[in-house]
Amino acid sequence: MQIAMLQDKIVPFEQVDSNYFDRGLFFGDGVYEVIRSYKGQIFALEDHLQRFAQSLEAIEIKNVDIGIIREKLLQAFKAASIADAKIYFHITRGSGPRNHLWKADMKPNFFLTIEELHNDPKEKIVGISVSTYPDTRWKRCDIKSLNLLPNILARNDAAKKGCGEAIFVDDAGFITEGAASAFFAIIGKTLQSAPLTANVLPSITRKFVLKAAKSAGLDICERLLTPQLAADASELFIAVTTKDIVPVVKFDGKVIADGRPGKYTKKLEEEFHKFIE
Amino acid sequence: MQIAMLQDKIVPFEQVDSNYFDRGLFFGDGVYEVIRSYKGQIFALEDHLQRFAQSLEAIEIKNVDIGIIREKLLQAFKAASIADAKIYFHITRGSGPRNHLWKADMKPNFFLTIEELHNDPKEKIVGISVSTYPDTRWKRCDIKSLNLLPNILARNDAAKKGCGEAIFVDDAGFITEGAASAFFAIIGKTLQSAPLTANVLPSITRKFVLKAAKSAGLDICERLLTPQLAADASELFIAVTTKDIVPVVKFDGKVIADGRPGKYTKKLEEEFHKFIE
Repeated sequence: MQIAMLQDKIVPFEQVDSNYFDRGLFFGDGVYEVIRSYKGQIFALEDHLQRFAQSLEAIEIKNVDIGIIREKLLQAFKAASIADAKIYFHITRGSGPRNHLWKADMKPNFFLTIEELHNDPKEKIVGISVSTYPDTRWKRCDIKSLNLLPNILARNDAAKKGCGEAIFVDDAGFITEGAASAFFAIIGKTLQSAPLTANVLPSITRKFVLKAAKSAGLDICERLLTPQLAADASELFIAVTTKDIVPVVKFDGKVIADGRPGKYTKKLEEEFHKFIE
Repeated sequence: MQIAMLQDKIVPFEQVDSNYFDRGLFFGDGVYEVIRSYKGQIFALEDHLQRFAQSLEAIEIKNVDIGIIREKLLQAFKAASIADAKIYFHITRGSGPRNHLWKADMKPNFFLTIEELHNDPKEKIVGISVSTYPDTRWKRCDIKSLNLLPNILARNDAAKKGCGEAIFVDDAGFITEGAASAFFAIIGKTLQSAPLTANVLPSITRKFVLKAAKSAGLDICERLLTPQLAADASELFIAVTTKDIVPVVKFDGKVIADGRPGKYTKKLEEEFHKFIE
């Protein structure tokens, strides 16, 4: 008899909830997005939906109508009625008995949560510390997939060191990005960040940071940074949807400049927030 | 109000089944094993449990008693009463609101299935074709984790090409292993396979294949093969728990030797099956 065991309980196969057979659980066979709202307005919705569509396409999950995803999202956002909300959603390829090979007609699973954002205001005022971690991720980090084990291992390592984010360093010794953020350095009057390749997520917040750079009086240089260059930068920060710009004041234990959030970082935050209003 | 959306349905957070909040689903934050039985006897149980313990340790899932896992597995195997069974099980770190940082006291989720093995006998008799695929996986493939997106993409690519398995080739041009199997070449009288590194799963079947080599009249050489060397080999095969040894007769379209399963491969199968009896 085909059976399953859930914790301690033996259950006939056919009585097991289909969630247990989600390919997202067996293989991480799905993609996700995190979007936020500021004072009741969803930020950069279309950018996120476009990236989501690209992620779906990259892993060949077809027959998902982005128009319907947009509708669902707006419906849920309205129902939740949270002004500063964090919206998470994912789609997996579907549920079925575990098999590497997928069936073309599988029905994708959609899952979404909306919660109130609880950012620590201190982070923006005093900045955070970050620590480096080997970039052990797969080679398609441009896809926002559910394969996030290296990311959580990295972030938990950072937390153990009292740091708010882990910064990935690849085998060649270059910084790719944060485990859950884009990473930026300001050297002189130039804003620097890794170019977008298959190893880097095309961060939406990064896009708006670059857009804000000119008004903040900064030039832009997309190049690979080393930990040494980062530690010697005049300013560092990370960019992430849920927190936009967060100053970094310590890098692998080395204090950045005077140990306080830098003036250009502050200016970038101001310029960034003009996109929201 | 914190809410979730399951497919089309809006549900208050607190009413959502904890399965939806499994870290295995959000992050692939878990590890698994596949074990089989031959005629009512589980094969290499202790090897699999030992590897499972190593995987758990590698991703810092603690407080899992392997003795209890063994008991559950044997209990389920008895209840299923399937002579030639495929036993799949995984443990994830637990369920909770999505957060990269885990809590030390999370209760791991255990899930197991037992099904009858349905191997196509033709595969062993006529052999299979394989195709290469870029090894885009993360850098800790020695951990049997739920982050399997590159594996399923590779296997589906192979299936499209009419192949039974995808063989990963890394950036340096070397074969690491199959997407769901170990890969072997026989060149002259030498059995060759990639050495076990962080990029290769310590396959249990591989271990028994190497053990069988001497009796089969083969020397062993653990070294990295290129696709060219593989295509020119006198015999090729893959090794996987559910099928043990499967001859490979075509590699990226190139027919291997006379296109039929090789004599040493057959001999290895015979020797391998002596471990079972």
